[in-house]
Amino acid sequence: MIIVLKQGTPQKEIEKIKRSIQMKGLQIDESRGAKKTVMGLVGDTSVIDGEQLKANEYVENVMRVSEPYKRASRSFHPQDTVVDIGDIKIGGKKIAVIAGPCSVESQEQIDGIAKAVKLSGASMLRGGAFKPRTSPYSFQGLRDSGLEMLHHASQKARIPVVTEIMSADKLEAFLDDDIDAIQIGSRNMQNFELLKAVGKVNKPVLLKRGLCATIEEWLMSAEYIMAGGNRNVILCERGIRTFEEYTRNTLDLSAIPAIKRQSHLPILVDPSHATGKRWMVEPMAKAAIAAGADGIMVEVHNDPDHALCDGAQSITPQMFDHLMNSLRQIAPVVGREL
Amino acid sequence: MIIVLKQGTPQKEIEKIKRSIQMKGLQIDESRGAKKTVMGLVGDTSVIDGEQLKANEYVENVMRVSEPYKRASRSFHPQDTVVDIGDIKIGGKKIAVIAGPCSVESQEQIDGIAKAVKLSGASMLRGGAFKPRTSPYSFQGLRDSGLEMLHHASQKARIPVVTEIMSADKLEAFLDDDIDAIQIGSRNMQNFELLKAVGKVNKPVLLKRGLCATIEEWLMSAEYIMAGGNRNVILCERGIRTFEEYTRNTLDLSAIPAIKRQSHLPILVDPSHATGKRWMVEPMAKAAIAAGADGIMVEVHNDPDHALCDGAQSITPQMFDHLMNSLRQIAPVVGREL
Amino acid sequence: MIIVLKQGTPQKEIEKIKRSIQMKGLQIDESRGAKKTVMGLVGDTSVIDGEQLKANEYVENVMRVSEPYKRASRSFHPQDTVVDIGDIKIGGKKIAVIAGPCSVESQEQIDGIAKAVKLSGASMLRGGAFKPRTSPYSFQGLRDSGLEMLHHASQKARIPVVTEIMSADKLEAFLDDDIDAIQIGSRNMQNFELLKAVGKVNKPVLLKRGLCATIEEWLMSAEYIMAGGNRNVILCERGIRTFEEYTRNTLDLSAIPAIKRQSHLPILVDPSHATGKRWMVEPMAKAAIAAGADGIMVEVHNDPDHALCDGAQSITPQMFDHLMNSLRQIAPVVGREL
Amino acid sequence: MIIVLKQGTPQKEIEKIKRSIQMKGLQIDESRGAKKTVMGLVGDTSVIDGEQLKANEYVENVMRVSEPYKRASRSFHPQDTVVDIGDIKIGGKKIAVIAGPCSVESQEQIDGIAKAVKLSGASMLRGGAFKPRTSPYSFQGLRDSGLEMLHHASQKARIPVVTEIMSADKLEAFLDDDIDAIQIGSRNMQNFELLKAVGKVNKPVLLKRGLCATIEEWLMSAEYIMAGGNRNVILCERGIRTFEEYTRNTLDLSAIPAIKRQSHLPILVDPSHATGKRWMVEPMAKAAIAAGADGIMVEVHNDPDHALCDGAQSITPQMFDHLMNSLRQIAPVVGREL
Repeated sequence: MIIVLKQGTPQKEIEKIKRSIQMKGLQIDESRGAKKTVMGLVGDTSVIDGEQLKANEYVENVMRVSEPYKRASRSFHPQDTVVDIGDIKIGGKKIAVIAGPCSVESQEQIDGIAKAVKLSGASMLRGGAFKPRTSPYSFQGLRDSGLEMLHHASQKARIPVVTEIMSADKLEAFLDDDIDAIQIGSRNMQNFELLKAVGKVNKPVLLKRGLCATIEEWLMSAEYIMAGGNRNVILCERGIRTFEEYTRNTLDLSAIPAIKRQSHLPILVDPSHATGKRWMVEPMAKAAIAAGADGIMVEVHNDPDHALCDGAQSITPQMFDHLMNSLRQIAPVVGREL
Repeated sequence: MIIVLKQGTPQKEIEKIKRSIQMKGLQIDESRGAKKTVMGLVGDTSVIDGEQLKANEYVENVMRVSEPYKRASRSFHPQDTVVDIGDIKIGGKKIAVIAGPCSVESQEQIDGIAKAVKLSGASMLRGGAFKPRTSPYSFQGLRDSGLEMLHHASQKARIPVVTEIMSADKLEAFLDDDIDAIQIGSRNMQNFELLKAVGKVNKPVLLKRGLCATIEEWLMSAEYIMAGGNRNVILCERGIRTFEEYTRNTLDLSAIPAIKRQSHLPILVDPSHATGKRWMVEPMAKAAIAAGADGIMVEVHNDPDHALCDGAQSITPQMFDHLMNSLRQIAPVVGREL
Repeated sequence: MIIVLKQGTPQKEIEKIKRSIQMKGLQIDESRGAKKTVMGLVGDTSVIDGEQLKANEYVENVMRVSEPYKRASRSFHPQDTVVDIGDIKIGGKKIAVIAGPCSVESQEQIDGIAKAVKLSGASMLRGGAFKPRTSPYSFQGLRDSGLEMLHHASQKARIPVVTEIMSADKLEAFLDDDIDAIQIGSRNMQNFELLKAVGKVNKPVLLKRGLCATIEEWLMSAEYIMAGGNRNVILCERGIRTFEEYTRNTLDLSAIPAIKRQSHLPILVDPSHATGKRWMVEPMAKAAIAAGADGIMVEVHNDPDHALCDGAQSITPQMFDHLMNSLRQIAPVVGREL
Repeated sequence: MIIVLKQGTPQKEIEKIKRSIQMKGLQIDESRGAKKTVMGLVGDTSVIDGEQLKANEYVENVMRVSEPYKRASRSFHPQDTVVDIGDIKIGGKKIAVIAGPCSVESQEQIDGIAKAVKLSGASMLRGGAFKPRTSPYSFQGLRDSGLEMLHHASQKARIPVVTEIMSADKLEAFLDDDIDAIQIGSRNMQNFELLKAVGKVNKPVLLKRGLCATIEEWLMSAEYIMAGGNRNVILCERGIRTFEEYTRNTLDLSAIPAIKRQSHLPILVDPSHATGKRWMVEPMAKAAIAAGADGIMVEVHNDPDHALCDGAQSITPQMFDHLMNSLRQIAPVVGREL
């Protein structure tokens, strides 16, 4: 971190600033020019709040030269992290494909979809039991019984399952029903109490990027989970909010190389939520793999026109099968397999 | 809600769509033109999911003509809502001013600020006990003991207090410590489990707009709280995230007339978080009152340069006093008082 | 400007970078720490391209500590600039109000509106002759004959007039018809050839902020005009593009204090284009004046429902008269007059 | 287009609205429900301004059901358009690759790069002679002599060339120097006078998407060119402006399937300007081809660290050669060749 002081800062103030930094265990590389004083901070600068420093009237500017995250940073962990979920591995050579409905609607429905996606080669089942809906009058998910149905479907089809948690007080139920991975949705990416809670358990966490979260904020949320001791974090890009209304959100595929450079964590892409349009799922899934994603997460529904949520973006099992065939062709071109 | 079907939609499909709508208790005004069939839905369309309808391959487009919210809507409640908090009223003729530090740092600090802002004419004290911070390594607030300190400061200075809640399991502590109003912060605006929880208690809720929430989504979040039975909701605009980096966020003052037209709920403006710069607080506070806001919420700190958070945007008690004098001049011009 | 080199940068590369900077006439304040080398550049850094420096593989980061603009900067010109247009002054104590239709439709129409707005106290007339329209099939303005009509209306009602230019080859016509001030619209804020052209004439230029222009880019566009010799630049905030769709654009009133701090140029606010809704014009105009704007620009049309463009956001002469009365009350509160 | 009138609209007003629509040559499909009157417009609705209709106090809402563009629309031209530029075809089976420096710096430089990219298999050369730069103090391009150098380099290396035009008065020079295709840059996407000018010549136009242009606005700009008679329009996605600062812009690859569905025009992707980082060019180029783009446009420079502009995002000829090999592997997987 570099701190530039304003021209004419009194010596007394310079000393005051230096002391407050040294008290946090950092060393200072000071440089006095003809006009300005520049301090380079050496040590763990993640304890320093740059905005706070800027509040000081003598500070002209502050620049970070290292990231504010550590456990999530590739600098501190150069090798790719591979997260194990049952038999499957996310982040290795094999592309992971997570598929399933927006929400669990019945045991029969989730069983059918689980079987179908497994048959087409999906690595993992998804399905919502607790649903974050914009309107209080929309279907809120089957909640506890949805969790049970997911567990049964997962056991029957022999495919691990991931589902979204919406508040820490439900964590016990996720553990009891033996959900294989816990999803933190976009709207909860900065629900810090929830991040802390999942940081303490021993289950992989799929952390979706917030609607208007920067890459750095996203990694800071991963850091929250990792700081609690849980290092099994999988990131998932799902589109950010922009002015463009043609798609539900704007899928930011440049997040893939960005995350690969900044972090060692695996990254998936969810083209269903990003685009909101089922006919865009296949081209965007192919693009994600070509760009280096570790896998994709897609919404598959047996009867999208009558789905209880997100029908417009769900593909049918037949379309999913077609998608899997496309991805099988792309994967080897980028040194992966499926 | 108007549904436009594609040219050439088979009669069988038209009937299917009509039945699914009628099953939800709505009536249909059907119009068949030379080319297209148009259906006008009559009844409570908040139960209809427009995106879901668009997923049907025969539906060309869907247009809402009434809002998806009801309890928060001015159509159903033409008079302005006035929320009572102790002696003060938010939403009436008198401008409300909520002031205090970003976070409670000690009993002495909060006592001092409470006294100072009360003296300058603040209606209410603010102060954070539970702090949502981007980094897990930043100060997280004094938590439970912060709540107690707030309560004491509030009693001593005879000024009601509002503070932020970050998870439903802490609600009991807010009630025990007799916090006068509960704040839902930006990052939790769509933490639906938390919204449901505060919807069930009998305390005013200050609902901040999410960083990338539309006016409609914000009102839908108010609707979540109101649907639970708690009608004492106060909205607070605090800037949205845009491409502009000069300010921390972009303060959207047009939200004031927008909310006043769409809803009967009171609306405050927080220029501190919106701009992130203390020298912008006063001009933006004056603009907010001129535009018709019911009050403002500002960060005041005795020693901003050494504040544990948000120092860059906090004003001193002296600056606050100056601000109050300015607002006292603006208020009567727009038919309000302070 | 501060340049931070990566740890381990070879001496040869450090020298190479230093030479390339010194060749541009700048001095270097060098500081070598245990880990990094930091260079502070002293001199006119507006000739240095920071992005270009970052391309160098040995450069870790680059931070500007002074603005990239000079003529537009308050640092180089501490006093407020007041632009004279005929009898009126923009940027002084008196609030400027520019009013008129989106487009000139006929001599009779523009004469009528000119007379009406003058009567209500407008300082200046506006009206479009060349119209930038999203669709090639929309009304494109009366073009040359529109310019003539504006000139006649302006003479008859004794009120100066401003109108938009869309390409440099029309500049002659603006001078011939004696248009008092030339407007550069949002879509042309970075039409650099046009900026250079108006920089060479001796007419005030009203420079609207681009739909997605940062404050800095906007001032850089002003700098283009001023670098050509024309110092009579008036800025006009008219809303930026964000995710919010309730309003046509999001009016960024924090641009007012931002511009006042960074620059000496006067700044107006156009609430009509910003909001796209006529009922929002008055509250937003009042807020603009309260925040310190030097004036406003509003669309006034005798028959908004049948206007050839922008009817939804135009106010009637009656509404304009009411608005003027409101502004006359706000102005003295912020030390201005109208 | 569907128009919904408010409940209780007087018959006289309904008739007035109908007459104004019929006068524009459209037929009306009227439907009167118990509560609302709905009109379906039949005919060429591109002449109707929806915003204008909404200004009418009796109109509740207006919904387009067909696009406001025609010549650019796939509905009116179902087959893909293939644009011929000399020997090469853009929009056919073969992927087009346009490569070259941000700006022409000397005859030697552009000759060298032209030869290198041709050797690696590029279809076309790019290079800037007229440069749109944010700062008036940055290098503005070699202008007329740059055009000549491009022409010579193109002849010598036998590769067609595209370069950017910044104002209509320079069009003659583009024709004289026999530039093969004319580029309209992002900042000029809504420079309507320039669009009209290039619409009248017989040269292919490469139309870049504006920084904050929606898909619809972009196609409307293509419509401007096509309405003038020039049907050889090639679209180029180059990133949009969002809140994310990690990349220079946010590359919107979902624009590829969106454009393919809405329009028959070919679409390229420019990963260099989109990301601003040279190490992101290859993954994003691969993703673009996987998503169905008709080609890519990349910045290649012999000495990026000393390029006069955009060095940070330029790749070397060696990196370009590597990129071409990657694309040759991706292309057949999506049914294309290179």
